[in-house]
Amino acid sequence: MPLLGIDLGGTKAAFALFNYKGELLSKESLLLGRRKGKYVGKLITSKISSVSERLKATGEKVESIGVSVPGISRSQSGTVWAPNIEGWEDYPLLSEIMELTGDMPVTIDSDRYCSMMGELWQGNARGCMDAIFFTVGTGIGAGILTHGEILRGSNDIAGAIGWMALTKPFSEKYRMCGCFEYHSSGTGLARSAEMINTRTRDEITVQGKKPAGKVTAKDLFNAFENGEKAAKKVIKENIEYWGMAVANLVSIFNPEKIIFGGGIFGPASQFIPQIRAEAEKWAQPVSMKQVTLEVSALSGDAALYGAGYLALQKIKDKSIKTKVRS
Amino acid sequence: MPLLGIDLGGTKAAFALFNYKGELLSKESLLLGRRKGKYVGKLITSKISSVSERLKATGEKVESIGVSVPGISRSQSGTVWAPNIEGWEDYPLLSEIMELTGDMPVTIDSDRYCSMMGELWQGNARGCMDAIFFTVGTGIGAGILTHGEILRGSNDIAGAIGWMALTKPFSEKYRMCGCFEYHSSGTGLARSAEMINTRTRDEITVQGKKPAGKVTAKDLFNAFENGEKAAKKVIKENIEYWGMAVANLVSIFNPEKIIFGGGIFGPASQFIPQIRAEAEKWAQPVSMKQVTLEVSALSGDAALYGAGYLALQKIKDKSIKTKVRS
Repeated sequence: MPLLGIDLGGTKAAFALFNYKGELLSKESLLLGRRKGKYVGKLITSKISSVSERLKATGEKVESIGVSVPGISRSQSGTVWAPNIEGWEDYPLLSEIMELTGDMPVTIDSDRYCSMMGELWQGNARGCMDAIFFTVGTGIGAGILTHGEILRGSNDIAGAIGWMALTKPFSEKYRMCGCFEYHSSGTGLARSAEMINTRTRDEITVQGKKPAGKVTAKDLFNAFENGEKAAKKVIKENIEYWGMAVANLVSIFNPEKIIFGGGIFGPASQFIPQIRAEAEKWAQPVSMKQVTLEVSALSGDAALYGAGYLALQKIKDKSIKTKVRS
Repeated sequence: MPLLGIDLGGTKAAFALFNYKGELLSKESLLLGRRKGKYVGKLITSKISSVSERLKATGEKVESIGVSVPGISRSQSGTVWAPNIEGWEDYPLLSEIMELTGDMPVTIDSDRYCSMMGELWQGNARGCMDAIFFTVGTGIGAGILTHGEILRGSNDIAGAIGWMALTKPFSEKYRMCGCFEYHSSGTGLARSAEMINTRTRDEITVQGKKPAGKVTAKDLFNAFENGEKAAKKVIKENIEYWGMAVANLVSIFNPEKIIFGGGIFGPASQFIPQIRAEAEKWAQPVSMKQVTLEVSALSGDAALYGAGYLALQKIKDKSIKTKVRS
């Protein structure tokens, strides 16, 4: 019987069925559109219903559900804090799903946790005891595996590496999202590109023209491909920040691997050799020699695989408990 | 029967007897003087002999030995890498001690590991699952506790926070010890003070005079106490670095506590409120609210207590194994 993994992001939700071996059987994505609050919850529960109905027709049923959320999952209350979904400060996602699914196991965890778990189950971290999933998308975060366990911290918010302080002095601009994320997230890259276009004589063009609307991170990478000087400058500055951040993680954790994921890695994967060269300047040299830098092998689905693994884990837990009880 | 804890530093070695409850029964320190290589090993083994002899006279014997070393303990080979002791690139400390002590349990671990362990056993980290021992002395390092285990990394060199990249651009000066350690270790503070005296019109005085010899970190703190402007400037700059480093550890680990130790904390403990204020600017705000910053309660003996605990742990391990076997 299949497992259902759900990866809720800030703009879309992906749903996938997995078998116990971790093979992805099917996958669909839905855009959140302008949904907020309980309408995002409804989108999820109605999709769970339709997946269940479809399986029923073939004599199967979902055995367990895992959900990755873009924020914090409060395991005590089953509620979710997701800063990019309006009205999800303390959203009762677990009870909403369980109302629908009854006694089917449901597990929710953060996207940082799930991405690392996905890589550990089916990706490039298989067999690792110490590894880091380094995500750069709209924001920046990390799933961190230490001696075989994923780091949670004292209140489930470990891995907030977007808040890393990487250059003096402090600027008020960092107050809302952290220094590293301000500069080097997808949002940060787009902001840097936009600032070049509005405040300097340099420009980042889209199809040969200075764009009328806002410049995106994608535009920036295209301009880089076209050899534009201003784009090269932004990328170079960010290779420096990414390299410093990688160096800090290497010196602190002495990991076997750092795996890059998220929308920006993606196109920024081509810079991994330069990021490594930058990190080599700063990091503890012995640790630096021992670490491998890789791109995620799960092409954007690390958190989705992780959600699938959450679902599997709950069944394992259940069967162990049943055995102990009987 | 007592446990023997040994804390080997770069300049001295401390020897202490503990009971199982963690009470320190006696303690002595020996200066290494100009000893290097095997003469440091001999100092340790001869002191172990004399402690054993003394105990024998009262009908007691050392039950187990734990040793904290300033570097890396290679658990496979039993050798030690200690960069500040000449000739200790791969020193066979374990076999030397065991040659003397026979089948008495002997355990060696790094000072980062032992300091955190000491705080966990008898210091301010008692009962913690997620805490950090932040040491600033000649160098900078951290013992890091995550979900109740001390972080080792894939090759036992996790916690090398002196290598943290804290400000752009990279300088060749950072190459040998790391950016954070270059600026904010005891050595770094003394260097900054010295540079003020040799390269600027400002000065850091010792008993009212510009010193003939090199300025030390201690001189700097004295000058600060006397309200000297140049000393205040150096301290202020380092509060910024210490604050950024604390912020990074808070955002990455979401710990319950950060405990400050080492020779510099010590006198720099008075700045913990300012370090906290600096960290609050940079760190993930929810994690920052949840963390406590404290000075070590073990007044310079955290690693020594940790060595005592290593000794105790080995006895526990042994008794568990014996039980399993029988």
